[in-house]
Amino acid sequence: MQPAVPVVETISAIRSWSRAARARGVSVGLVPTMGALHEGHLSLIRRAAAECAEVIVSVFVNPMQFNDARDLAAYPRSLDADVPTAASAGATAIFAPSEGEMYSFGAPLTRVEVSRLTDGLCGAARPGHFAGMATVVTKLLAACEPDRAYFGEKDYQQLVVVTRMVDDLNLAVRIVPCPTVREPDGLAMSSRNARLSPAEREQAPLISRALRSAEAAFRAGERDAAELVRLAREVLAGATLGAMDYVELVDARDLTPVTRVGRDALLAVAVRFPSARLIDNVVLRV
Amino acid sequence: MQPAVPVVETISAIRSWSRAARARGVSVGLVPTMGALHEGHLSLIRRAAAECAEVIVSVFVNPMQFNDARDLAAYPRSLDADVPTAASAGATAIFAPSEGEMYSFGAPLTRVEVSRLTDGLCGAARPGHFAGMATVVTKLLAACEPDRAYFGEKDYQQLVVVTRMVDDLNLAVRIVPCPTVREPDGLAMSSRNARLSPAEREQAPLISRALRSAEAAFRAGERDAAELVRLAREVLAGATLGAMDYVELVDARDLTPVTRVGRDALLAVAVRFPSARLIDNVVLRV
Repeated sequence: MQPAVPVVETISAIRSWSRAARARGVSVGLVPTMGALHEGHLSLIRRAAAECAEVIVSVFVNPMQFNDARDLAAYPRSLDADVPTAASAGATAIFAPSEGEMYSFGAPLTRVEVSRLTDGLCGAARPGHFAGMATVVTKLLAACEPDRAYFGEKDYQQLVVVTRMVDDLNLAVRIVPCPTVREPDGLAMSSRNARLSPAEREQAPLISRALRSAEAAFRAGERDAAELVRLAREVLAGATLGAMDYVELVDARDLTPVTRVGRDALLAVAVRFPSARLIDNVVLRV
Repeated sequence: MQPAVPVVETISAIRSWSRAARARGVSVGLVPTMGALHEGHLSLIRRAAAECAEVIVSVFVNPMQFNDARDLAAYPRSLDADVPTAASAGATAIFAPSEGEMYSFGAPLTRVEVSRLTDGLCGAARPGHFAGMATVVTKLLAACEPDRAYFGEKDYQQLVVVTRMVDDLNLAVRIVPCPTVREPDGLAMSSRNARLSPAEREQAPLISRALRSAEAAFRAGERDAAELVRLAREVLAGATLGAMDYVELVDARDLTPVTRVGRDALLAVAVRFPSARLIDNVVLRV
């Protein structure tokens, strides 16, 4: 039997819940999600449960971070299934606000903008996405007041942006990065994977295979960015149903393009299949 | 003898101080200032002390909200005098961080932007000012974690912007507006008044006199915005040393221009004297 966890729908109620925990002297973790929980989310929840006495899993599909209305409409929603799944991994509360609760003043006039780090990669392909994400993360942190918040490395640029935002704004939370979880064939776990057609699903593992190919060359001594990118593109060319949004090698800390790998670098890929846009990355550690 | 208040210089220390107060079950008020405290600030501190058991007065001249380097360089600084003054009005802690403490990661990449409300009035005249202000207020709120924060109505646009930002971001603080405090001759209290030459100081009360003139007409039934603005400008024309930045009548809630006063409206004025730019306003209540 699953433990019963409260499903909290209002900001004031989740804040009271979190403050009550703090008043008892225990730590609170937050795992922000858009629901449709998969093993990737569960690994974040398990990590949070290992480090914090109380774990809030927020489930909110944030319209403000979708630059594509079709993507928003198609985004999977499954709260009834998500609640017991989150509980089984260690969640002790679910925060599932409505859109009206999160945006009770109507379209927000306030945006949290993080510059530079959002210029490239998905920032270039998805205008407004990172401001929408950073704004809702600020709102979720203000609502849940966690000691720690857990983010996956699959969305690496998001992780870098959130970490910098928390530093810049002096928010009282520690951002904890967690490794990407993969299907047996290497495909990075994503809620969007469920939208792939069988043929697309068959090609999707080429994304991680392309990253592994470049990584192997890097380990064998290759440091030239153009060559590493070329190796990845060569494998990705097999994904004939998808269009490459980008294959880029950037500095792992500030996300600026690099021509030779001198310090830790991020090789990041986005492929647009007809049914879903997928992203993945690998950090090439010097 | 003044009560001794701690002068806290780090974010982590003021947060601990605030959390200790909350753990004792008492409320914390914040009065954010740029120092050079005058009677206007003291009225905010007294109000905070009447409503909160603990009162933090922050003193930080925030470079990010100055669009004019000369204005920043000329801004008065007097922490040694400010500490006992704040204490005498009821402050129980002073938060006086250095620039290095507030911007320890260098120039911030993160900006809190509030749209629409910042388009007109001082937003038009001071590009970047409100983003800088909103960003530092977010940081001060995150550092001090107050239950209430006190803002003067003299900076009316700032008050409207901060209130909306707190609502939009679901920050756990109540913004308390406080009435403008004036010199005997009507001049609104401002740290910048000290910079006026004797001749400028003599003309400066024309600003509040202009507002009173329009207000009197409004009370007598005048509702036409152009006429109310004309009346104010007529008085302001006597301030021959100053240049009018703006004289505008806007909706008191959303700050959009109005042509007739149908609901509460704000008549706002900015005058640029050679030594300092001064602002003032009156709310015309329907």
